[in-house]
Amino acid sequence: MHSIAAYQEQFLNYLEGQKILKEPTHLYQPITYILGLGGKRMRPVLTLMAAEVFDVDYKKALPAATAVEVFHNFSLVHDDIMDDAPLRRGKETVHEKWNLNTGILSGDAMLILAYQYFENYEPSTFRELAKLFSKTALEVCEGQQYDVDFETRDDVTIPEYLKMIEYKTAVLVGAAMKMGAIIAETSEENGNLIYDFGLNLGIAFQLQDDYLDCFGNPETFGKQVGGDIIENKKTYLYLKAIEFAKADEREQLLHLYSIQPNDNSEKIESVKEFFNQTGASKATQKAIEEFTMRAFETLSKMQIGEDKKMVLRSFGEKLMKRDV
Amino acid sequence: MHSIAAYQEQFLNYLEGQKILKEPTHLYQPITYILGLGGKRMRPVLTLMAAEVFDVDYKKALPAATAVEVFHNFSLVHDDIMDDAPLRRGKETVHEKWNLNTGILSGDAMLILAYQYFENYEPSTFRELAKLFSKTALEVCEGQQYDVDFETRDDVTIPEYLKMIEYKTAVLVGAAMKMGAIIAETSEENGNLIYDFGLNLGIAFQLQDDYLDCFGNPETFGKQVGGDIIENKKTYLYLKAIEFAKADEREQLLHLYSIQPNDNSEKIESVKEFFNQTGASKATQKAIEEFTMRAFETLSKMQIGEDKKMVLRSFGEKLMKRDV
Repeated sequence: MHSIAAYQEQFLNYLEGQKILKEPTHLYQPITYILGLGGKRMRPVLTLMAAEVFDVDYKKALPAATAVEVFHNFSLVHDDIMDDAPLRRGKETVHEKWNLNTGILSGDAMLILAYQYFENYEPSTFRELAKLFSKTALEVCEGQQYDVDFETRDDVTIPEYLKMIEYKTAVLVGAAMKMGAIIAETSEENGNLIYDFGLNLGIAFQLQDDYLDCFGNPETFGKQVGGDIIENKKTYLYLKAIEFAKADEREQLLHLYSIQPNDNSEKIESVKEFFNQTGASKATQKAIEEFTMRAFETLSKMQIGEDKKMVLRSFGEKLMKRDV
Repeated sequence: MHSIAAYQEQFLNYLEGQKILKEPTHLYQPITYILGLGGKRMRPVLTLMAAEVFDVDYKKALPAATAVEVFHNFSLVHDDIMDDAPLRRGKETVHEKWNLNTGILSGDAMLILAYQYFENYEPSTFRELAKLFSKTALEVCEGQQYDVDFETRDDVTIPEYLKMIEYKTAVLVGAAMKMGAIIAETSEENGNLIYDFGLNLGIAFQLQDDYLDCFGNPETFGKQVGGDIIENKKTYLYLKAIEFAKADEREQLLHLYSIQPNDNSEKIESVKEFFNQTGASKATQKAIEEFTMRAFETLSKMQIGEDKKMVLRSFGEKLMKRDV
């Protein structure tokens, strides 16, 4: 097994070696642009790590890891259009830098390119990888649709919210890891267990993202702290606050989530106070812990050496201890 | 072998039996809507027909035929956004009936759904079908990009134009037929020949579409006759007219292709006259014939019975004799 930094480096080397840029350049340039914007490359790293957890050289998993990363970036390009987002990782989004049509078409091409990376594998592995990929990709679309639907609904429940983040974010983390298991040709049980490990860690990760968006350190958090509150986003924190609030608190919170002041600092502070006093903050931290624990529990059932379990566990711990 | 009408009917029965509509309905409703808008279903019919040409029951080819039709409709949904088209087959386009985000996301889901239909086949067939499909789908994206690029270029050559319609339209016709060959497990040579048959017929078909858009019978042509001229579209007719025109004719044609009058009837008549007097109309008809002949020539090399060749030939003739 290698360090996370080593997997990141190996993946980036492989990615840079791909000849993606070709004619017509207006189609492929945006693809190399978005793939070059950086990020932690968490998903492909997990594919490489999972392959080695099940005793196969990570190099064998590089094409599948690339498929996962290309798909993830496809979803960013199309989501940024839907959210009308001007910036991604501090740089212009594709539809801003080029235009709407380029964003749509380059995104489409990336989804197809992702499938092509599986052609590096033999028929039975290819089929298994592509099948898992299609199922996952469709769930990501469904998750995005639920997210869009929730914007105009005021009766979203906690289970519905959890299903949304599971589909939109967590299934790809689970699938990224299961792909490593498929390539390593380990048992089906091991494959399902590492999928569950990734899935639960993915949910915990997204809940923590919600939490940090509100309570993160502005010095180290990459995005604007309070961004979700400014956009009146119905996060886990918000839904729990509404659930726990007394009638008058509820009214006040609903009011705060209906206004869009020029200066948001007062609104952000008031909402944060509600999140704390209703117990929503604590409930969110508890949920993060629970999903992390669920992920760790799958490790005990996995048929791999203790050293491998340690690697996965410490990755999970490192991910969940982040305050960025 | 069955009649085209019989293949159409069998395909529609199969399509209607698919349970595509599920939660979240905002994602899947637009998919059943666009798939239900009708059309000649030419591409899936060709997949079924090709399977029987190579002696396998068309029923085996139904899932692949569906993949082709779902992909074709995906490209319509995204292209309609890019072209800002309000109508498709006389009905509202998806992004008009719903909105931009629904058009993007439902389109994405259709591209993934198309791949899932190949899961009905065994690993080696699955891999071959998905590989051909990915290559083709990427070429369709490239063709669409060339089409977009051409709008703002005034130096498009005839070979460039032919490459654009080959990628945007013809490769999918070729691939639809080759999928039938793959499912029938015929020789690689037969597979390549039927691909070339479809490819050349597809180019001829698109050139004829250009021709009919200008010279078709308004009573029977589905779209507005002269639509390409109104939009100043650089079709084969236009490029040939520019090539053949004398200096002063060229000036006049360039002028006509720069104006957007309220009443287009005079502009349409003038442009049509240029197309006739420069010899562009004749040259287009000749090109249509040439590509049709090229398609028919591949038949002579194909290792199938004469009766099968007759079926393919008569399909080609029927397609090219249409005046609608």
